[in-house]
Amino acid sequence: MVTTEEDAVSALVMQGKDPRTGEVVGDPLTETSPEELDAVLDAAARTASTLRATSPGERAAWLRAVAAAVDAAAPELVSLAEAETGLPQPRLTGEVTRTTNQLELFARVLEEGSFLEATIDHADPAAVPPYPDLRRVLEPLGTVLVFTAGNFPFAFSVAGGDTASALAAGCPVIVKSHPGHPGLSVRTGQIVADALAGAGAPGGSFAVVHGVDTGVAAITDRRVRACSFTGSLAGGRALHELAAGRPDPIPFYGELGSLNPVLVTRAAVARRGAEIAKDYVASFTLGTGQFCTKPGLLLLPRGHGLEAALTDAADAVPPAPMLGSRIHQSFVSGVEALAGRTDIRPLRAPSVVDRPGSWAGAALFATTAAQVLAAPEQPLEECFGPVSLVVEYDSLEQAVAIVRGLGGSLTATLHAEDEGEDEDLTETVAALSDVAGRLVWNGWPTGVAVGWATHHGGPWPATTDPLHTSVGASALRRFLKPAAYQSVPDRLLPAALQDDNPLRLPRRVDGVLVPGKPE
Amino acid sequence: MVTTEEDAVSALVMQGKDPRTGEVVGDPLTETSPEELDAVLDAAARTASTLRATSPGERAAWLRAVAAAVDAAAPELVSLAEAETGLPQPRLTGEVTRTTNQLELFARVLEEGSFLEATIDHADPAAVPPYPDLRRVLEPLGTVLVFTAGNFPFAFSVAGGDTASALAAGCPVIVKSHPGHPGLSVRTGQIVADALAGAGAPGGSFAVVHGVDTGVAAITDRRVRACSFTGSLAGGRALHELAAGRPDPIPFYGELGSLNPVLVTRAAVARRGAEIAKDYVASFTLGTGQFCTKPGLLLLPRGHGLEAALTDAADAVPPAPMLGSRIHQSFVSGVEALAGRTDIRPLRAPSVVDRPGSWAGAALFATTAAQVLAAPEQPLEECFGPVSLVVEYDSLEQAVAIVRGLGGSLTATLHAEDEGEDEDLTETVAALSDVAGRLVWNGWPTGVAVGWATHHGGPWPATTDPLHTSVGASALRRFLKPAAYQSVPDRLLPAALQDDNPLRLPRRVDGVLVPGKPE
Repeated sequence: MVTTEEDAVSALVMQGKDPRTGEVVGDPLTETSPEELDAVLDAAARTASTLRATSPGERAAWLRAVAAAVDAAAPELVSLAEAETGLPQPRLTGEVTRTTNQLELFARVLEEGSFLEATIDHADPAAVPPYPDLRRVLEPLGTVLVFTAGNFPFAFSVAGGDTASALAAGCPVIVKSHPGHPGLSVRTGQIVADALAGAGAPGGSFAVVHGVDTGVAAITDRRVRACSFTGSLAGGRALHELAAGRPDPIPFYGELGSLNPVLVTRAAVARRGAEIAKDYVASFTLGTGQFCTKPGLLLLPRGHGLEAALTDAADAVPPAPMLGSRIHQSFVSGVEALAGRTDIRPLRAPSVVDRPGSWAGAALFATTAAQVLAAPEQPLEECFGPVSLVVEYDSLEQAVAIVRGLGGSLTATLHAEDEGEDEDLTETVAALSDVAGRLVWNGWPTGVAVGWATHHGGPWPATTDPLHTSVGASALRRFLKPAAYQSVPDRLLPAALQDDNPLRLPRRVDGVLVPGKPE
Repeated sequence: MVTTEEDAVSALVMQGKDPRTGEVVGDPLTETSPEELDAVLDAAARTASTLRATSPGERAAWLRAVAAAVDAAAPELVSLAEAETGLPQPRLTGEVTRTTNQLELFARVLEEGSFLEATIDHADPAAVPPYPDLRRVLEPLGTVLVFTAGNFPFAFSVAGGDTASALAAGCPVIVKSHPGHPGLSVRTGQIVADALAGAGAPGGSFAVVHGVDTGVAAITDRRVRACSFTGSLAGGRALHELAAGRPDPIPFYGELGSLNPVLVTRAAVARRGAEIAKDYVASFTLGTGQFCTKPGLLLLPRGHGLEAALTDAADAVPPAPMLGSRIHQSFVSGVEALAGRTDIRPLRAPSVVDRPGSWAGAALFATTAAQVLAAPEQPLEECFGPVSLVVEYDSLEQAVAIVRGLGGSLTATLHAEDEGEDEDLTETVAALSDVAGRLVWNGWPTGVAVGWATHHGGPWPATTDPLHTSVGASALRRFLKPAAYQSVPDRLLPAALQDDNPLRLPRRVDGVLVPGKPE
C-alpha cells in the first residue's frame, strides 16, 4: 500500500541490486502504467479466441522456439541473473537448462495429446431416456496472469513453468515480473516475445508487466481468467482473496509456504545417522535455504545423538548472499522469533556477517515433540533461508501427529531402513502422503524432477488448491476447462472431437480408451 | 442468522410441507446439535485413512449396494418425495433411475481405473541431473461436505451425484439435507447408511446432518476438506467465501446460477420457427422451470414473427406447484422485477393462481438486443420458475456479444440449419462454448445425459470453479488430489503404483499410456 509521497515515488520505479554487495545493477525500471496495462489486457483478450483455435502441434512449435531462444541467450541471461540475484553461475546455468527442458516437456505433452481428455459418447437412441451424441474436450480458460518468483529467476519466472504451461494450454499469458530481477525479467520477456512472434504465435499471446499495483489491477480485471503465483504466505493469501472476492471469482493457483518435514526412524539413525545429519544440512542450506522444498523440520528419535554432527556440518557451511534485502530481513526476523521462544533452544546461532549486501549463515534450533504438541495454536511457519528446527520424538505416531499439525507441505521425507524397522511403515507413509504433495524416501526434497509423474503441490498452506501442480506434465490442467458438445455436426466440432480424429489424439470413445494413431 | 427468540426456535425445527396444498407433511425434524455434528465430523475424520486404503473395486461394490437399496425402496421414497416436493410421480420415478444409474456409472469408472491417473516415471540415473523413480496417483481429499439441492430430491440430494462421486473418490461424506424435503432426506439417509454398512463400508463413511447453522459450522470446521453445493447464487457465494476465508481454505464446488441462452438463426426460424417456439416453451416450463438448465433467454432474429406462437404455447401450459414457498416467492419477485423494467415488455403475464400452496403459471417477456447492450451494468439473472425473456437481435455477432455479457452458463443452445445459413457458424460455436459448459445443437438444454463425456459446469456464475463438473464420470476428480512418491520401495507404494499393477489399472509408464490388463 502506498502511504507516503516518498513511497509513491519509489513504488513507480524498480531497481536491481546485487545482493553480494548491495550495489545498484542496471537502469531503474518504471512500473507499467494503467494505460499500458489496459492495452496489454485488451490485446490478450482479443487474442484468446485465436489461440483457442490453434492446434496443440502449433503451440508445441512455439514452446520449442522459446526454448531455443532462451538457450541461445543463456550466457547473457545468466550474467544478468547473477548480478541481480547473487546466485552462482553454475546453479543459474543449470536452471536455464531446467527451464528449457520444461518448455520441451510441455511440447511433448501437447504432441501426445492425452491432456485434452477428448471423450466421445455416441448417441444411444434406445436408452431410456435416449442418450444424445455427447463429446467433451478441455479448452483454454483465457488470459492467465502469472506472478513470478524471486528464488528461481528462470524456472519460476518469465519463461518458467507457469508461462510454459499456460501457453501450452492455449491461454494468453501476462507475466507480472519479480522486483528482485527486473533487468533479467525485461530481457527474458523480449526474448520470449520475439521467439513467439518468430514462430507465428499471434500478437497478444504474451506480455510482461511490472509493479505491485499493476499486479493488483490485473488480478481484479474482468479480462483475466486465471492467476498463478509462487511466493509468500501473506502475499499469496492476499491475492487469493482478491481473486475470490471479484464479482466473478477466478481460479487462483498459489504456491505459498511449506515446511517440508523430514522424519528419520530409529533404525535409520542407528545405521547411518552421521550421513543423514550431513546430508540434511546440505539440503536445508542449499541455495542459501531459498528453495520452496527446503526442509525446515527434522524429526529425530529421542536420544538420537546427532546434535554434534548437525552443528559441525552447519559450521562448515560458509555464509552466502540471500536473494535480496527483504528476504534477508525476513530470515533475520524468523531466526529471532525462534531464538525468542522458550520452548526452543538454539543449537547454532547464525554467523553474524558484517559486510554489505544480504549475507546469511546457517542456524539450527532444537525442541521436543512434547513441546511442539503442547502449543498447537502456534504452528511453525516456513522461514526462507538456511535455518532449520530439530524435533526429538518419542514414537513414530507422535512424529506423524506433529507433521499433521503443521498443515500441508510440498514434500515430506522419510528416512528408514528396508530391514530392522521397529514397526510397519505403511501407515506412516500414508499419513505423510496425505499432508504432502510428494513423499521422498531416503533422499532429499530439494531438487524437483520435472516429468510426467511430477507433483509439485500440496494441501494448504503449501498451495491454495491441493488438486493441482505447478511443475510437471499435468501443470497445464490448471488452465483448461471442460467443454461438452451435444449433437453438434462434425464440421462444427473442435478438431479434437471430430469423427476422423485429425489430431490423432488418444481419446475415450464410448467409455474405452483408444490410443492415438501414429503418423 | 438467528435474530429473535421466535427465529431461534423455528431455526431448530424443519417441517415438510406439501406445495400443492401448503399442508404439513410428516413430523418436524430437529436441527443437528453442535455435539452431534462434532461426533459426525470426528467419525468421518477417523474413517478417512481407512477409506483411503480401500480399493476402487471395494468402493464400486458399495455404490452398487446403495443403488440396489435405493431402487428397492423406490416406491416408498417416491411417495415421500411427492408429498414434500409436489413433483409428479413419473418424474420422481425417472429421477430415482437416474440416481441409481449415476451410482452405477461411478462404479464402472472405479473399475475402469483411469480416474486414478496412475503415472510411473522410472529412474534415469544417466539424466542430468539424475532422474529419480517418481510415481504419481490421485488420492482422496478427505471428508467432503455436500449441500444438497431442493429441485432434484434424488439426483442432487442425499444419494445424488455429489455423494456418489465423493464416496467413489474414497472420501467420507457428510450430507447437509435440504429443508424442502426433510422427511425424504432422513429416510434416504437411513437407506444409504444401511446399504453402505451392509456392503462393508467403514462406519463414519457417510452421515446426514440438518440445519443452516449446522452447515455453516461444518464448512468452517478443520475436519472438512472439501465442499460441494448446488443452489442459489447468494447462498453459494456466501458459502464460497466461508470456504475461502478459513485459516486453511478448502476447495468449494458450487453450482449457482445459469441463464442457459438459446440462440436461433434466421434460417432456423424460417424453416421451423413454430416448432422451435413450441419446444422452447416446453423446455423453459418443464418441471415448472425449476431446472438448473432451464433456458431463461431466447435470442431470435429481428422480425422473427414468433411472438404469437410463443404466447399461445405458454397459454397452454397449466399452472403447477413450485417446490416450496421460498422458491415461489423468488419467482414472484423475479417476475415483478422484469415487469417493472422499462426496457422490457411483457408478452404474457403469469396466470394468477388463487389457491393454497405454491402454484405458478408461465410468464414471457421481450426486449431487443440494443436495449440489453445499452444497460450492461444490469445483467439478467437466473430466475427459477416458468419465466423467460425473448431478445430480438440484429446480427449473430450482436447476439454472441449479449451471451458473453451475461457471464457463464451451464449450457448454451444453438438452433441452426445444416444448409442455408447466412454465415459460417464456426466462430459462433466457439464463442458459445467459451461461456457455457455444454453446447447443445438443435436440441434443448433441459435433460442432462450422464456418461463419460458429460460436462455439467461452466464459468462463473454457473459454477464457482470452471474446471469441474458436478455430473458425469469426471465429477469425482473434484475430490481427488495428486500424490507423488519418490524412490519409495514397492512394498510401501499404494497398490495403484506397484510394479506388478495388482489393480490392473491403465497407467502412464515413462510417458506412454499402457492399457489395464483384463482379468
